[in-house]
This record gives sequence, C-alpha cells and structure tokens, in this order.
Amino acid sequence: MNDKTLDVLAIGNAIVDVIADSDDAFLDACGVAKGSMRLIDLEEAERLYGAMGPGRELSGGSAANTVAGLAALGLKAAFIGQLADDQLGQIFTHDIRSLGVRFDTPARSGIGATARCLVLVTPDAQRTMNTFLGAAQVLGPEAVDPGRIAEAKILYLEGYLWDPGEPRAAMMKAMNAARDSGTRVAFTLSDSFVVDRHHADLQRLLDEGRIDILFANEAEVTRLAGTATFDAAVDAIAPKVSTLVATRSEHGAVACRDGGRASVPAEPIETLVDTTGAGDLFAAGFLAGEARGLNLEQSLKLGAICAAEVIQHYGARPEKDLKLLAGDLLS
Amino acid sequence: MNDKTLDVLAIGNAIVDVIADSDDAFLDACGVAKGSMRLIDLEEAERLYGAMGPGRELSGGSAANTVAGLAALGLKAAFIGQLADDQLGQIFTHDIRSLGVRFDTPARSGIGATARCLVLVTPDAQRTMNTFLGAAQVLGPEAVDPGRIAEAKILYLEGYLWDPGEPRAAMMKAMNAARDSGTRVAFTLSDSFVVDRHHADLQRLLDEGRIDILFANEAEVTRLAGTATFDAAVDAIAPKVSTLVATRSEHGAVACRDGGRASVPAEPIETLVDTTGAGDLFAAGFLAGEARGLNLEQSLKLGAICAAEVIQHYGARPEKDLKLLAGDLLS
Repeated sequence: MNDKTLDVLAIGNAIVDVIADSDDAFLDACGVAKGSMRLIDLEEAERLYGAMGPGRELSGGSAANTVAGLAALGLKAAFIGQLADDQLGQIFTHDIRSLGVRFDTPARSGIGATARCLVLVTPDAQRTMNTFLGAAQVLGPEAVDPGRIAEAKILYLEGYLWDPGEPRAAMMKAMNAARDSGTRVAFTLSDSFVVDRHHADLQRLLDEGRIDILFANEAEVTRLAGTATFDAAVDAIAPKVSTLVATRSEHGAVACRDGGRASVPAEPIETLVDTTGAGDLFAAGFLAGEARGLNLEQSLKLGAICAAEVIQHYGARPEKDLKLLAGDLLS
Repeated sequence: MNDKTLDVLAIGNAIVDVIADSDDAFLDACGVAKGSMRLIDLEEAERLYGAMGPGRELSGGSAANTVAGLAALGLKAAFIGQLADDQLGQIFTHDIRSLGVRFDTPARSGIGATARCLVLVTPDAQRTMNTFLGAAQVLGPEAVDPGRIAEAKILYLEGYLWDPGEPRAAMMKAMNAARDSGTRVAFTLSDSFVVDRHHADLQRLLDEGRIDILFANEAEVTRLAGTATFDAAVDAIAPKVSTLVATRSEHGAVACRDGGRASVPAEPIETLVDTTGAGDLFAAGFLAGEARGLNLEQSLKLGAICAAEVIQHYGARPEKDLKLLAGDLLS
C-alpha cells in the first residue's frame, strides 16, 4: 500500500456549531433530554435559536472534527461533505482548509442553508445538540471519487449520515471503492438513534465484513448488542468486527482485535468545560495511531489524550498543540 | 428626567468578529502592526482570511460590546447599527437581542455584506484587528429616531463611526436630539487614527460642549492633546469636557470631573487570554455607574471589573455573571 498518500479520508456532515451556555431549566422548557442529539427542522431551529442565549460559532460536524484532530496531529486527512453556497459554508470551508485538510466538495445552491448544530452547554459541561441538517443531508454519490478513496489508508464514515438516503448511497459507494483498493473502513455509530433506526443495516454491514474498525460509545454498543451491560456488549460485538473501539467517557475506553483486548483510563483533566467533540477527537487519536502502525493500547492512549484536550474548552476542535500532547507516541 | 426608560442607547458598528490564534511571524508577513486596528477592503479581507487559521465567530463591534456589558450588568440598553441581510447579520441580531438589548435597525440588502473584524490573537494576548466595514459604514441618519434618543439617560457614540460620512451625519443628528432632550452624550475616541483624521472635528465638538463624557486610552488622549505624556494630556483635555475617562490598560484608569480626579488600578486577573473588548467593557462598567449615580471612583472600579472579566477569555463580550462580579457596587 505504498500508493496511499492520505492517512484518512472522512465522509460526514459539514456543520457549523452554534454554542451557547444554557441550564437545566431551559432544556426542560424546550423538552430536550440533556446530553442527547436530535434532528430539528428549519422552523424548530429558528424557534430554538430565538429562545437561546448568544452563541459562539465554530466549525463542527462529527467526522469533520475528527479530521481536524488528525491534521492537528500531523496526519494527512481529507473530508467529503455537503455545504450550501452561503456564509456559514464559507466559514466551514475556511476553517477546515486552514488546518491543512483537503476539502473540495463543491458547495451547492438551491438545497437550503448550510447545516448548523445548536449546542446547549449546561454548567456540568454536558452538551445537548439540536441539529438542523440542511444542505448536509443531500450529499450524494457524485461527491465520492473512487480514486480519492483509493489514496487513503483509512476511510472514516460518520454514522449520522447513514440516516438520510443520499449520503447512505454515497457511503455505500465509498465502501465499495475502499474494498476494491485495499483501504480499511472505519465507521462510527454516532448516536443511539442511528443504531435503533438502522439496526438491520448495521448488522448486515458487520456480517458482510464491510467494517474494519467500529467506534461506539457505551449507549451505542449496548444498543447494538442488545445487552444490559457494557462488558457483555463488547463481548458480543468484538467477534463480528476486525477492530472494535468502545468508549465510556470518564471511565476510559477498550479496544478488541483478533481475540486480544486493550484498555486505557481517561486522561486526567484540569477543568471540564464542554464535552462536545470528545468522541470525535478520541476517534482522531485512535485513527492516527492505526495509520502510523501503533499497537492497540498506544492508539487508545492517543485517543484519550485528544479527547481530554477538547473537553477543556468550548468547541469540538482542538486548540492546543496535539502533536506536543501526543509526545513520544507519534514521534 | 423621570421619562428616561433606557439607561444607554449606543450607536456603533454592527460587526461579527472572526477570532484566530496567530503569531508575530504571521503579523510581520502580513505587514500589520501588533495591537492596531486597520480598515481593510473586501479583497484584503478575503486574502487575509484565506491565509489565517481557523476562526471562532463571535458578535462584536465596539459600542455593541459595551451595550452587551451594560445588559449583563442589568441595565436597560439599546443599540443602533447597520447590518446586511445575510447570515452574519442574523447572528449579530440574535446575539444582541438574546442579551436583552433593544435592537431594531432594519438590515438592508444591496449594500455589501455584514461587517466583520478579523482578529488575530498572539500568544501575548494582544489582538490585532483587521476590519472590513461593509454594511456598517452606510448607517444613515434615517436609522436615528430622536424619540428613542430622548428615552435614554446616556447616548454613547463609537468614534470609529466618525470616519465614514453617513454614520457621522447619523451621530450628529443623534447628538442634536440628545441636547434637545436632556440626554447626556458619551463619546469614545476608539482609535488613534480617528483622532488623527478628525482632530479638528473633535476639538470643535469639545469646544461646543457637545460631549459630556469622553473616553480615551493613553494613545488617543495624548494624540488629541498633542502632549508627550499621559498626565500632561489628561491635564490638557480635562478642562474641555464635563467628564474625562482615560484608560491605561494594566496601569488602571483615571477620571476627571469639575476639577476633581479619581483613579483606580487595574483589577487583578488570573490568565490574560485576549485583550479584545477591554476598552469596550471598561466603558460599560463606567457608564453603568454613571447611569446609576455612583461616584467617579466607584464607576471607574466597575469599569475595571468588567474589563478584567473580558480579557480572560476569547471574545469581546462578557461570559461570567457581571452582576455577581459587580457585587455591592450595583446592588
């Protein structure tokens, strides 16, 4: 695979986050569950935006945050995602390119506005996400160039995008191209609702061996396995996928491969500010380790380091020098 | 003046800040002086934006930051400023209204984009501002309702807006309305370039007694007075205006009124992050004190408290509870 000039190519939602401080009373009044992600339409987006406090706008999107982390770690990354031809689209494009990520999916007009996620951060640093997908959900197969997929060591797919039809077709096309070109496929389940709505699809993808690396948090992996406990879920899913990475927030993470198993505790932090992006940056660290040929435990450690950085400030992309934080692991 | 239902009405640039980490080498390469503010055209804005790192978008604008601070202190504030009919304009409108500030200047189309300020923050927490004024500079007299001016105890004018012609006419109209209705006029010099370009105008405004409260930092007051030292400048300007407030960053601030003089040191801080908005929030604290009838020293102290809060995080608007920080001063 000496022809792989890219470490990771990711396909995901191209989203600008609008981050506001909030409190439990506001979440209750809006009827949203703390810590959850829900999809909202334009009308609800405008209603909620009108009611919430002042925002900080920061580029986001789950897989986009992951490639931002990969670039910050010094890896070569590319991103595919759909923007509208508007100011938020310009902001997203600027931010991701300025990190050195290759991004050239053309913005389209006539498909609504660029996606935004209204992120309500409570004093306990939990984030509650209200996502208006807009343009992001019409990413189609035409945006996927099999030649570009072939350039990447790893194709990383955002589970959120399995929900709408066009992006699902785009990701199927990308998975086929990956299989044809010896590119490993990584998939993040993204959210319990993805597991619930697409359980059969996900089982089929696993059964057909289409996923090489599966990322899941505790809620997602137990939902996928249909078990009561995290450990039982990991035991049930691990045999079905080459590499399983299961994260548990402050309780660390485990990875399973070929009957082997590694685990790491969460990295110590000084101040928990905003958990947005924790899973995305964990994936960045782990994928960086995989692309550089580290062992399971080292890759998990790198994931934990990146996640710890991003939860200590607002926003879902790294602010500190991740290469420095990674130290010997990536030197 | 029992009919004054507003504490402060401000007229200023309606701007969204785009804040990015930077370093001295980048500033040198761009040929911009650290700590300065310069006006740039659309072409330069696009060139600089393309070269700089990822941004955080936060509503800004000097006088708008001041009214945001006033609202956070619990005062009744209103704002007049010109936006374009675009997404950045929607962001500015949302943010200022969500703070409880009255803002109803209609956005206009066909006047270019909403203003933005590309703020480069160096590791020493200095901010270097590159402002594309766009729609903000076509604020015209029609946006000023004399009835609204009459409702305010204090009219606060942003010196930056003295530069373009239409807003200058709008501010003259507002000053006339203020004089007719017993509303005090506060004016901030904003930047040395304003003093240099409009020295004669400013002298005339002072000579005619049109300014009741003048805000200036060290560079501005010495430029206005044409003296070598801060103290000499304060001595020269103080007799020309009812109230002079002169700020000196980490060296505190002084205020002069009726031959009397008060001063405060800067408030202690933990970590200096981004000095953007320091002057704006100092003005907010001082004006809050004036509107509530505090003495000079108390108003200065409140200014110093608000400035200290805003320089300890990114962005030019308060994040912590200013009322709590103000403590007994505003109770």
